[in-house]
Amino acid sequence: MTTAHRFPDAGTEPAPLPGGPPAPREGVPSTARETLEAARHLLEPALRDRVNTLPAPLAGIASYHFGWTDAAGRPDAGPTGKALRPALVTGCAEAVGGSAPDAVAPAVAVELVHNFSLLHDDILDGDTTRRHRATAWAVFGSPAALLTGDALLALASRVLAEDDSPHVATGIRWLARSTELLIEGERADISFEERERVTLAECLAMAERKTAELLACSCALGALWGGAEPERIAALRAFGRHLGTAFQLTDDLLGIWGDPAVTGKPARADLACRKKSLPVVAAMESETPAGRRLARRYGPTTDGAAEETPGELALLARLVEEAGGREWARRRASEELDRALVALEAAEPEPDAGRRLSALARLACRRDR
Amino acid sequence: MTTAHRFPDAGTEPAPLPGGPPAPREGVPSTARETLEAARHLLEPALRDRVNTLPAPLAGIASYHFGWTDAAGRPDAGPTGKALRPALVTGCAEAVGGSAPDAVAPAVAVELVHNFSLLHDDILDGDTTRRHRATAWAVFGSPAALLTGDALLALASRVLAEDDSPHVATGIRWLARSTELLIEGERADISFEERERVTLAECLAMAERKTAELLACSCALGALWGGAEPERIAALRAFGRHLGTAFQLTDDLLGIWGDPAVTGKPARADLACRKKSLPVVAAMESETPAGRRLARRYGPTTDGAAEETPGELALLARLVEEAGGREWARRRASEELDRALVALEAAEPEPDAGRRLSALARLACRRDR
Repeated sequence: MTTAHRFPDAGTEPAPLPGGPPAPREGVPSTARETLEAARHLLEPALRDRVNTLPAPLAGIASYHFGWTDAAGRPDAGPTGKALRPALVTGCAEAVGGSAPDAVAPAVAVELVHNFSLLHDDILDGDTTRRHRATAWAVFGSPAALLTGDALLALASRVLAEDDSPHVATGIRWLARSTELLIEGERADISFEERERVTLAECLAMAERKTAELLACSCALGALWGGAEPERIAALRAFGRHLGTAFQLTDDLLGIWGDPAVTGKPARADLACRKKSLPVVAAMESETPAGRRLARRYGPTTDGAAEETPGELALLARLVEEAGGREWARRRASEELDRALVALEAAEPEPDAGRRLSALARLACRRDR
Repeated sequence: MTTAHRFPDAGTEPAPLPGGPPAPREGVPSTARETLEAARHLLEPALRDRVNTLPAPLAGIASYHFGWTDAAGRPDAGPTGKALRPALVTGCAEAVGGSAPDAVAPAVAVELVHNFSLLHDDILDGDTTRRHRATAWAVFGSPAALLTGDALLALASRVLAEDDSPHVATGIRWLARSTELLIEGERADISFEERERVTLAECLAMAERKTAELLACSCALGALWGGAEPERIAALRAFGRHLGTAFQLTDDLLGIWGDPAVTGKPARADLACRKKSLPVVAAMESETPAGRRLARRYGPTTDGAAEETPGELALLARLVEEAGGREWARRRASEELDRALVALEAAEPEPDAGRRLSALARLACRRDR
């Protein structure tokens, strides 16, 4: 028997929302923002259209999760996701000479798989806010949110199967396999919370499954739909994989030092729940005095963030930094981004599409995204 | 906000197991048993083979769930499922002139979807025993069992997509759609627990989604893989749908009056958790004194079976019977079985396969199955 893991109830009060969506930031390369915007513009009508084919109650909960409706089902314009994965699909389709609109089915499918995993992760992690709003389970209860996640996963296969591309069966194989690995990454991530010690290698392997795998698959699906040869698909898959690891490292840095107004999550949320994220594990494995002090204080919590003082969280963050965890994560993210860009180059992308993918990759790894 | 729904913890003690697997029963048509046995024989190696392609920890939990290993991962021969859905797939393939071995991919896929739903349902319903053993969440914790269910759903698509049938894309569309409806049926079923009143029409519609839909899909996939024309597929789909409703009615009868040694679940389990199953709703809607008395006693429980006395459960069962709920469910199950057999006849099945499907349908609706 494992130790008990308590699922959250809808009765739990969600944490206060950390203010509205972020204001536009200066200095971010406009190419990347425009690329994301264009992908979102292409994605969103198709995504809404497909989600609305789900049985009505499930479609309603999904619409809330995606930010299209409020908790009462009224139209809303909540901040939607960044659509990074769909942008990688359409960008990679264009990079190999295909067209973005022709790759909208895999773009929708990867976004559905991503959101299936968010709905389940929020339940498993007990997270009460996402994208500056209460999470679906906090509004509709864990069972309804869990089942809505299930429905998005089933829908992802259907969206691919309904496309008229000759690559449907291959695409479904790849997406299903990546989803299985993503699920195993989530399982490992949760199991780490119960373990005293996790090695950096284990933690990197977990991040590769949980995050990098679906980004790699997004790139591969885009290239496949765009008609690329296997070598080019492999190069773009490698681009997505390295980018995914860089992205997760960046996310882990934001989980400790991110601005709640930008991330949409409470400050130092990852420390409050004792998440064994990459900077934390790097610090604990550093064999420094600060790392050892961190390891002693980083035992499993019973009640999570609720009872943690801001002072204690600030101390934990300082210990991660002093032990070199922050610097290691920054350096490793930068190295992974470099590897991603090398792989992108190897795919010999169409010049414009290559520039857009490169800008997108740099944006995804910015610590103020 | 909905009322709180507490997810079960692994720390909860599973209910005592109600004895070993059932002894073979006399008087059951041997054709049906042999048909199920043949389907299981064909299914199981393929199912094990595919489940073992999942990442190891998930494959391990799934192996426990399927009865192939014990909680410590040692080989076991726990009672596996009846393989009714795979038997419908292969039976319908043969009914239209195809071969059972050629339809093994859809047979595996429907069994994976069924078991995905069992893993999630057991968490959502807090059920601690299934097939005479502790449920997966009770052994491995809710998060691991939830994620294993997710992985089986992803794997179901992959199994179909890896087949070389020309019907892969159509099959994935149908299976995904049925899965979405099954999920909505489960959502409705859970939502009924929180409602004071549920009409019989709502309850029948829920059962059609939750149970009949996947049986209908199993028949349709078998016929599709067997190369049937649309009309014949539609007739076999109708066979599966009526059979599915009859099967659920039988299951609901067993959930109140079934023998724990046969069902593998505690006696009167559905009454203990105040499930609004079909015989119960028929009784409550009957406008009889017993039905009204039942409705007054059938409020939501807070702690489920644990605090319920056997006397109270026996009283509830008696009220359902006195109000006519048992008789109604028996009659309706019999009518649905008749409709299923009419639809089967309309499909003009190959004679041997038709006889086997007919025997299988009768067995699935026996109250001593």
